[in-house]
Amino acid sequence: MSEAHPFDRAIALTPDREGLWRGATSAAYANMAGPFGGIVAAQLLNAVMLDQRRLADPIALTVNFCGAISDGAFEISTRLVRGGKNTQHWSVELAQNGATAATASVVCGVRRPTWTHLPTPAPKAPHAKDVPVAQAGPRPGWTNRYDMRFVEGDLAPFPRADGVIRSARSLVWLQDNPARPLDFPALAALSDTFFVRIMHVRGTFQPMATVSMTTYFHVGGDELARIGAAPLLGDVDGDVFHDCFADQTCALWSADGRLVANGVQATWFKE
Amino acid sequence: MSEAHPFDRAIALTPDREGLWRGATSAAYANMAGPFGGIVAAQLLNAVMLDQRRLADPIALTVNFCGAISDGAFEISTRLVRGGKNTQHWSVELAQNGATAATASVVCGVRRPTWTHLPTPAPKAPHAKDVPVAQAGPRPGWTNRYDMRFVEGDLAPFPRADGVIRSARSLVWLQDNPARPLDFPALAALSDTFFVRIMHVRGTFQPMATVSMTTYFHVGGDELARIGAAPLLGDVDGDVFHDCFADQTCALWSADGRLVANGVQATWFKE
Repeated sequence: MSEAHPFDRAIALTPDREGLWRGATSAAYANMAGPFGGIVAAQLLNAVMLDQRRLADPIALTVNFCGAISDGAFEISTRLVRGGKNTQHWSVELAQNGATAATASVVCGVRRPTWTHLPTPAPKAPHAKDVPVAQAGPRPGWTNRYDMRFVEGDLAPFPRADGVIRSARSLVWLQDNPARPLDFPALAALSDTFFVRIMHVRGTFQPMATVSMTTYFHVGGDELARIGAAPLLGDVDGDVFHDCFADQTCALWSADGRLVANGVQATWFKE
Repeated sequence: MSEAHPFDRAIALTPDREGLWRGATSAAYANMAGPFGGIVAAQLLNAVMLDQRRLADPIALTVNFCGAISDGAFEISTRLVRGGKNTQHWSVELAQNGATAATASVVCGVRRPTWTHLPTPAPKAPHAKDVPVAQAGPRPGWTNRYDMRFVEGDLAPFPRADGVIRSARSLVWLQDNPARPLDFPALAALSDTFFVRIMHVRGTFQPMATVSMTTYFHVGGDELARIGAAPLLGDVDGDVFHDCFADQTCALWSADGRLVANGVQATWFKE
């Protein structure tokens, strides 16, 4: 039996009593201080995915990063706030040593065949295989867990001291490294793989953090499974950097032009 | 003393013990069934605004609409999940007869002067005063509480039976009716005044509801106060309508081209 993918090991949770799960941080997804936010989002979502009360695929995920997460064990609580025939609303919290470090809301929704209308075209980009993989360089460990192929808006060189203000937009093919079939926790993590935009714009390394992120899933689990382990085209941009806070908006597209997920982030920065 | 604005009466809350507030639905902001979601968002946010533990302006608001809200009284609980020196994370719930009908997370953040960068230009539009106010017609009561001046993508005529699929985008000057100085609860409500996109696209009236919405605030309270009671230019679009769920993305701009707030919604529809 082959060893589990690092992502699967990172999001693994042990059930305690109903609505309580035990997990631990993963060195493979370490960030500068504490874990990569995307793996935290994936762990929070995975607790709902594993919960036997869940009736349907996730539609919307909001994660609020409340406090630092130390290396080691944590617990995640899943509360089914309200369930109807079309949607389930979950409230999820990650705690360490009794202090809440992250909260999430997850909406699950029953997808039935309806009228489908996909008016927005995918951004034009060369095939992933024709774009070189960015060298991770001296970046935090989690960046080695993703192949990033920048079509536009590479972070490198970073940091820069040229004083040039660059575009906040990046267009980048993204894929788990090693490749892994897509599922909802993987999508949640992918939606946070876009570096905080201020790094791209200013080229400076400064105190910064994501405070809240929201991801919407636009395919059902069966459709996601059909995409398999293929790379997704990520398109990210930012509109506002002002008085300690900034935003960024992202979209993840399949190679055949389907919007798989999109979302927003509010980020904090100093100076 | 002049009578309070309908919005102020609608979001008024009576403090009970710490972290518990009592309010009621408002006929002035009634929707087809239950209240306008934007007024619920404003009520949830207002509970945090009124809470004496709050230290800073709101940055991010996510509201999850879990269940039907009946006409009448409700209670809102505010829980300060975690507070740091830069941010406060709040968890908020609206309950009626012991059942949670809406949840929210609110991130408040201390804004200090930093580098400001506003790379995204406002959409071009004629001045609000040069655009006629849309006639509310046979729409639910809350629509009378807003002046809407459609530059592009008016809902009228509605419903339509022409079978034409139209753009999901609307560009519309929005203002409380009667005019009222902007504050964060008003912004939260304004971010939900965009009709569910499927109505614009298909022209059909069908079962639909917002299941989750996220709004980011990009100005401090002092900056918002300076905008006063002026109209905001709302820009909204949708990317995906598929298997019972759709999304929409909005931005609210001041007349002088400042992005005041932006956000996303996940909506449910039938058929």
